[in-house]
Amino acid sequence: MAYTKVVIVGGGFGGLQVATRLRRAPLDIYLIDKTNHHLFQPLLYQVASAALSPADVAIPLREILRGQTNTTVIMGEVVDLDKEKRLITLGNGDIVGYDYLVLAVGARHSYFGHDEWEEVAPGLKTVKDALQIREKVLLSFEKAERSDSIQEAAKYLNFVIIGAGPTGVEMAGAIAEIAHKTMFKNFRRIKPEKSKIYLIEGAPRVLPPYPETLSIRARKDLEKLGVQVLTGTIVSEITSEGVKFGNQTIEAKNIIWAAGNQASPLLRKLDTELDRQGRVIVEPDLTIPDHPEIFVIGDGALAKDKKGNPLPGIAPVAIQQGQYVAKLIRKNINDEKRKPFRYRDKGSMATIGKFKAVGYLGKIKFKGIFAWIFWAGLHVGYLVGFRNRFSVMLQWFFHYLTGIRGARLINRSIEEDLPKGRGTKITN
Amino acid sequence: MAYTKVVIVGGGFGGLQVATRLRRAPLDIYLIDKTNHHLFQPLLYQVASAALSPADVAIPLREILRGQTNTTVIMGEVVDLDKEKRLITLGNGDIVGYDYLVLAVGARHSYFGHDEWEEVAPGLKTVKDALQIREKVLLSFEKAERSDSIQEAAKYLNFVIIGAGPTGVEMAGAIAEIAHKTMFKNFRRIKPEKSKIYLIEGAPRVLPPYPETLSIRARKDLEKLGVQVLTGTIVSEITSEGVKFGNQTIEAKNIIWAAGNQASPLLRKLDTELDRQGRVIVEPDLTIPDHPEIFVIGDGALAKDKKGNPLPGIAPVAIQQGQYVAKLIRKNINDEKRKPFRYRDKGSMATIGKFKAVGYLGKIKFKGIFAWIFWAGLHVGYLVGFRNRFSVMLQWFFHYLTGIRGARLINRSIEEDLPKGRGTKITN
Repeated sequence: MAYTKVVIVGGGFGGLQVATRLRRAPLDIYLIDKTNHHLFQPLLYQVASAALSPADVAIPLREILRGQTNTTVIMGEVVDLDKEKRLITLGNGDIVGYDYLVLAVGARHSYFGHDEWEEVAPGLKTVKDALQIREKVLLSFEKAERSDSIQEAAKYLNFVIIGAGPTGVEMAGAIAEIAHKTMFKNFRRIKPEKSKIYLIEGAPRVLPPYPETLSIRARKDLEKLGVQVLTGTIVSEITSEGVKFGNQTIEAKNIIWAAGNQASPLLRKLDTELDRQGRVIVEPDLTIPDHPEIFVIGDGALAKDKKGNPLPGIAPVAIQQGQYVAKLIRKNINDEKRKPFRYRDKGSMATIGKFKAVGYLGKIKFKGIFAWIFWAGLHVGYLVGFRNRFSVMLQWFFHYLTGIRGARLINRSIEEDLPKGRGTKITN
Repeated sequence: MAYTKVVIVGGGFGGLQVATRLRRAPLDIYLIDKTNHHLFQPLLYQVASAALSPADVAIPLREILRGQTNTTVIMGEVVDLDKEKRLITLGNGDIVGYDYLVLAVGARHSYFGHDEWEEVAPGLKTVKDALQIREKVLLSFEKAERSDSIQEAAKYLNFVIIGAGPTGVEMAGAIAEIAHKTMFKNFRRIKPEKSKIYLIEGAPRVLPPYPETLSIRARKDLEKLGVQVLTGTIVSEITSEGVKFGNQTIEAKNIIWAAGNQASPLLRKLDTELDRQGRVIVEPDLTIPDHPEIFVIGDGALAKDKKGNPLPGIAPVAIQQGQYVAKLIRKNINDEKRKPFRYRDKGSMATIGKFKAVGYLGKIKFKGIFAWIFWAGLHVGYLVGFRNRFSVMLQWFFHYLTGIRGARLINRSIEEDLPKGRGTKITN
C-alpha cells in the first residue's frame, strides 16, 4: 500500500515546521526548496552587516532532516502546478505528485512598480542578498578611501535605508555601528565616522505596527547612534547616484531597500484570489477554495485574526501555521470538521544596536538593555542546531566586546567601479 | 622632510610580514592588495570542503594594521610599473610612487598551456575559488539525487583531483570524508558513500618533495579513506564530462586542479629574467638586477638555497623573506653590504583527514594522530587574530566530533544544470 504523499514547497519557518511535526507519521513526505538550507532570517541582517557568517544562520535542510526517514529533501525550483491532476513541475520538467500540498514559498521584496530600483537598492531576503549588501557596504568605504576629493568620498559615505520596519531599523543601526565603531582607525585618508546614515519611512513613525512608545524609543536610540530618521517621507526616485523625495535629493552610492514585500509569483499558478501583495487569500483552515488538500502558509498567505486584521509576515505566524497544518494532515481531518487557524500573538522584537532593542509581549513593553538581552537569548534559543548556537554566541561575544565584525570580506575587484584615467597620485 | 616611501604589493604571508616588521620604523608605508583581506591559505581547502567559513581564514588587512599609523592600506590592483620613474599604476590609472618596492604578488594556477581547462577544473587560491569549489561539490550530490538513472548519478558522484601536492592530498581526503561521513543518511535516492574519488599525480608518488616514507604513509591513509590514487599518470584532456589519460577515461562532473602554479603576470612588467613558471630570478638579496630598491618575495620569486635548489612556494619561505627584506629596509642597508637571504627549513606538513597527517622537521618524521595534533596546533597558532583562532577551534571541535561540516551552503539554482524536458516523475 502506498503512503499518503505530502509535498511541502519551501524550507523556511513554516515549511520546515510542517515537515518536522510529521516526523513520526506514516506518510511519504517531500520537502522541496530552491536552496539547500533553512535560513534563520531574523539574523540575516547580521550577515549583511558582517557580524556573522552565512553558515551561522543557514543550516542544510538535509542535515536537519537526516534521521527523519519518512522525508525526502529535493533541491529544486517549482515552476508550475496542476490542481486537478495534483502535480507540481520543477524547473527542468521533472514532476512531483501529491495528495496534500503545502505551499510555504515566502516573499521577495516589492518595489511598488519600480522594478528598475532593485539593481541600485537591493533588498534582504536570501543569503545571496546579504552577501551582496555586505560587499557593497564594505566596498563603499574602500572606494571613499580611493576617492580624490572630499565631495566624491562623501557620496560613498552616505547610506540610505528605505523602510523602517524591523529589517530597516536593524540595518540602519548596524551600518551606523560599522561606520562609527568597526571602521574606527581603519583608514588614513577618510574618516568613516563622518558617514551619514539615513532611514526613510513613509509612515509617520518607525516600526509602524509597534506600540507608539516603542517607536519613539527606537527612533531615539537610532539617533543616538547617528542615524538621521526621516518619517512621513515617500521616495519618488532612486538612481545609482542617490534618492529623491519631495524636492530634496540625498546623494548616496549605498541604498538598501527594506520597504515592501511581494509574495512568490508561483502562487499565481493557483488561479485563486490574491491580494495586492500577491498573497493568497486563504480560507479559515489555510486552504484555497474547493481544494482542502492545498495549504498556503507563511508570508505567501493572507490570513486574518479574529478581528479581521491581516496577520503580519513574521516567523511566529509561519511556525504556528505550520503546526496547525501538520496536525490536520497527521490526523487526516476532513475539511468540514476543521477548526479555523488562530494565531496566538506572543509579541515582537527589533534590535537597534549593541544593548539596544525594543519589544512587546501582550501589554508588556521592553526597551534598552533588558530588551536586548531578551532578544539575544530568544534568537540564539530559536536557532536550529547546537553548532550554530555556539558559533553565534562566540561571534557575538567578540563582536559586542570589541566592536570587531568578523566577516568583513570583499571578493570582487574595486577598479572597475572607480573613475578612470585621472592619474591621481596617491602618495604625496 | 618626507619619509622614505615603502610600497608593498600583496598582503599575503610575505607582504604582510614586511609591513608588520616595519611597524616602528620612521617610514611611509603603503600596502596594496586586490582584496581587503589577508588569507590564511593553508586552511583554504577547509573552506572549499565546507568545514570552515571564509571569515575564519580571511582577516581584513585594515583590521590587522589598524594601530600601525605609519601604514596606509590601499585596496587596488597594480597593473603597471615604471622602474625608472619609480611609480606603479593601479587599474583605474591612479599612481603610487615609491622609494622601496616589495612585490609579494603570489601565483595563480597554471594549466600548462591548456587555459580552457580552468572552467571545468577550477583551482584553489582565493576565497572566491574556494566558494566555487564548495558550491560545485555540494551541488553535485544534489544533482546526483535529481538524476533519473544510476549511470547519470555516477558521473556526479565521481570526483577527480589532479595534482598530489599538499593541496591535492588535502582536498582528496576532505572530499572522501564528505562523501563517506558528512553526507551519510542525508539522501534517500543515492548513496553518497558510493562516490569515487580519484587523485591523479604525474610524479611517481604523492607529496613528491616529502621523504618517501611519508609519501607511502599518506597514500595508505588516503586509500583507507576510499581515495583511488593514480601516480605516474599524466592527464591529456579535461572536459566537462571527464578526464583522459593514456587510453583511459574517467567520467566525472567534478574535477579540481591542484597541479601547477604560474606567478602573477604583473612580474613581466619588471622586464627582468623569469623562469618557466613566470617567477622572477632574484639576486641573493631578493632584488632584481640593477635595482636594489625592488624586492620580489614569496611565490613570485625564484630564490635558491645554498645547494642551488629552488625554494618551494610555501608560507614559511615567504615569511622569512619578508623578515629579511624588512630588516634591509629598516636599516637602509646599502646593496653592497647586504648578506644573502638564507632559508631555514623548519619542515613541512600536510593533513589527510581526521587525525591523519604527515610531516617532517629536519630529519624527524611525524605521522598519524601525533602529526595531526601538531598540524592542528601549529595552524591555529599561526592564524592571525584571537577571534579567528577561537572560531576555528570551535568549528573543528564540532566537525571532528560529529563529522558535520558547518558551512554546507549552496546559493545558486540547480535547475539550469539539469537535463531538461524529460518529465521524470520523482514521486512513485
